[in-house]
Amino acid sequence: MEASQDFARAEQPRLEAPALKRINILGVTGTIGQNTLDLIARDPDAYQLGAITAHRNVADLASAARQFKAELAVIADPSLYKELKAALAGSATQVAAGPSGMVEAGAHPAEWTMGAIVGIAGLKPTLAAVQQGHCVALANKECLVSAGEVFMQQVAAHDTVLLPVDSEHAAVFQAIGANPSSAIEKITLTASGGPFRRLSKDEMKEVTPRQALQHPNWSMGRKITIDSATMMNKGLELIEAYHLFPVEPEQLDVIIHPQSIVHCLVEFTDRSVLAQMSSPDMRTPIAFALGWPQRIEAPTKPLDLIELARLDFEAPDLDRFPALRLAREVLKLGGGAPAVMNAANEIAVAAFLAGEIGFLAITALCEQTLEAMMQLSALPAPQTLDDVFRIDQAARRLAREELPRFAI
Amino acid sequence: MEASQDFARAEQPRLEAPALKRINILGVTGTIGQNTLDLIARDPDAYQLGAITAHRNVADLASAARQFKAELAVIADPSLYKELKAALAGSATQVAAGPSGMVEAGAHPAEWTMGAIVGIAGLKPTLAAVQQGHCVALANKECLVSAGEVFMQQVAAHDTVLLPVDSEHAAVFQAIGANPSSAIEKITLTASGGPFRRLSKDEMKEVTPRQALQHPNWSMGRKITIDSATMMNKGLELIEAYHLFPVEPEQLDVIIHPQSIVHCLVEFTDRSVLAQMSSPDMRTPIAFALGWPQRIEAPTKPLDLIELARLDFEAPDLDRFPALRLAREVLKLGGGAPAVMNAANEIAVAAFLAGEIGFLAITALCEQTLEAMMQLSALPAPQTLDDVFRIDQAARRLAREELPRFAI
Repeated sequence: MEASQDFARAEQPRLEAPALKRINILGVTGTIGQNTLDLIARDPDAYQLGAITAHRNVADLASAARQFKAELAVIADPSLYKELKAALAGSATQVAAGPSGMVEAGAHPAEWTMGAIVGIAGLKPTLAAVQQGHCVALANKECLVSAGEVFMQQVAAHDTVLLPVDSEHAAVFQAIGANPSSAIEKITLTASGGPFRRLSKDEMKEVTPRQALQHPNWSMGRKITIDSATMMNKGLELIEAYHLFPVEPEQLDVIIHPQSIVHCLVEFTDRSVLAQMSSPDMRTPIAFALGWPQRIEAPTKPLDLIELARLDFEAPDLDRFPALRLAREVLKLGGGAPAVMNAANEIAVAAFLAGEIGFLAITALCEQTLEAMMQLSALPAPQTLDDVFRIDQAARRLAREELPRFAI
Repeated sequence: MEASQDFARAEQPRLEAPALKRINILGVTGTIGQNTLDLIARDPDAYQLGAITAHRNVADLASAARQFKAELAVIADPSLYKELKAALAGSATQVAAGPSGMVEAGAHPAEWTMGAIVGIAGLKPTLAAVQQGHCVALANKECLVSAGEVFMQQVAAHDTVLLPVDSEHAAVFQAIGANPSSAIEKITLTASGGPFRRLSKDEMKEVTPRQALQHPNWSMGRKITIDSATMMNKGLELIEAYHLFPVEPEQLDVIIHPQSIVHCLVEFTDRSVLAQMSSPDMRTPIAFALGWPQRIEAPTKPLDLIELARLDFEAPDLDRFPALRLAREVLKLGGGAPAVMNAANEIAVAAFLAGEIGFLAITALCEQTLEAMMQLSALPAPQTLDDVFRIDQAARRLAREELPRFAI
């Protein structure tokens, strides 16, 4: 038979991918950074690596710089500058270090930047990439949770595109596709429910960091794995989704889906729902961002629904997982509240991992810190990065002060 | 919080819906036609009804013409012309009848035409709409199964858009969205498996038309309900999908999904899968076609995955449902083979419903007719509508000749 309809001509993307894509990777030694390198290594002629950065992992940073002939390698910890310099001696890679070096990496000329620095440290370098007009693949939560307004204003001002890399947000981005915002009725993020989906509140009181670090489906960093166990991760994702997509807080929902195959559901006004699915492998959402607006290949195991046989769904339990309820309240509060909750949560998770507080105290500390902050100030939305840092630091201070009340 | 990112600017549809959409409905008295009227009635100021047609149902045709102030009403059976004329006396609606009237209806000025005539009778009127450059919502299988090459050549020549209305194909159209054809790895249509999903072949031998007409999820016409029971319907849909979407036969697959909630799965090269879901209500795919490239509202029950709790998937059994195997072979054969299979199937289903042949004989007769036809001719692809009608008539004749061999 012959070729088919010139499909959906009216909606073909207009952008052509350049023959050689110049890319930066901010946070190259973490899970997201390494998976990005894995994809690039499969088609090395398609990419030119500009700047890459790491926090303190000199060995992997230098190794990536040599293998991919990076133009610039930056180590965040300035005390490691000489070590990095030595490791890259004789290579063509330039070397820098410290906060100014990290911003230099973000602003390094490129078409595409992976923003995969963990925590508030990612804010300035990622924003530098946005301000250079790079297409930014975003895997840093703080840019949107703590600094959503500031960050999205810059994205709009520099007329660039933000491609979410979180599997749920990458899923929503794809499911919305070319649909206009007026067509969207509801966005539902799925949550595995984590390792404690079936535990009672009493049982949760007793769980250890070791148990909480056993995520059923995903292999991730320690902080995000604990956030998955409390479901604070899904709460943070709701706040991110609010900034990324043109919806109101009440149009955002969460559903429990233990198999982590369906990553989102987008319902439209005609009651059609588009869902994105894949095997749980971060290389698929990274490949989506790397290839956009085309699609490249990813080595992810193809989805086999016959093998899976069934997909399950249930309502989240806001009583056993109060972090999700808190995050919804914080999303409605807006202003500086998300930045406070996020900062308190970082302190709480670190304290839990250090054995200082119990599992249920993680969310309780967040809630307590937020209440204390709101008694001190009206928590307006941060208008500048300095505002964000100020709120973040104040919330951390307060959370540390409250910590002893929750000590085991 | 403030407004979000100007989402995916590069891919917003360029087309603006006209303030008043002029539409024709070919086959207004069937399930699809009536559901289309239901949607129009909910927003009457948005649409102007041009031509509407029916096969023999004068009462419903006249009633629709009066209610929606249609410009032209056409009855296919010319012997009913006077009856229709009388029923519309005093209205502003013009009246016509017979084959030329049906083509006149198809060519009646409009932006959008619903092609919902059942069977080979739909070919000429629907093609007339394509040739006028209407955006055509297609609910007629024969246009693509029997005349795919001819039909799609005309769609391309008149630079118009074909919007599939079958729930599975509407699903695929949405899931592909703005993705380029090079991004598509595989298209999987879902099938409920019909009422006999769990029956053995021996049990299927004995089933009655009454049992076969009990579809578990959808309320549809008799012919398509029997086709769902044999799974020939899914086979015909594979052939339609081949013409609608830019894929090769081996990129098309079928999976059993008893709940009929997920209507398709489109896998991309990065192993991301977009699936379309909805409650089983034809008003959702019709609303998609009616609103495209915008989305309008549909009164369909919103999908509730928490209530559904689970979605199941399994492999189709080609031994118990040989129609699916036959259709795949026919798809690979190409040429005139799909037209032959489709014609033989119509004869076989009518014979089954009349109690002349058993359930398993339906597919057996199709296979036998195809073999007999191939001994007579090489079955090249029809190049004109006349070729299509010739093959169709020859196949029907042959199927009727073979029929007695399968008599109960």
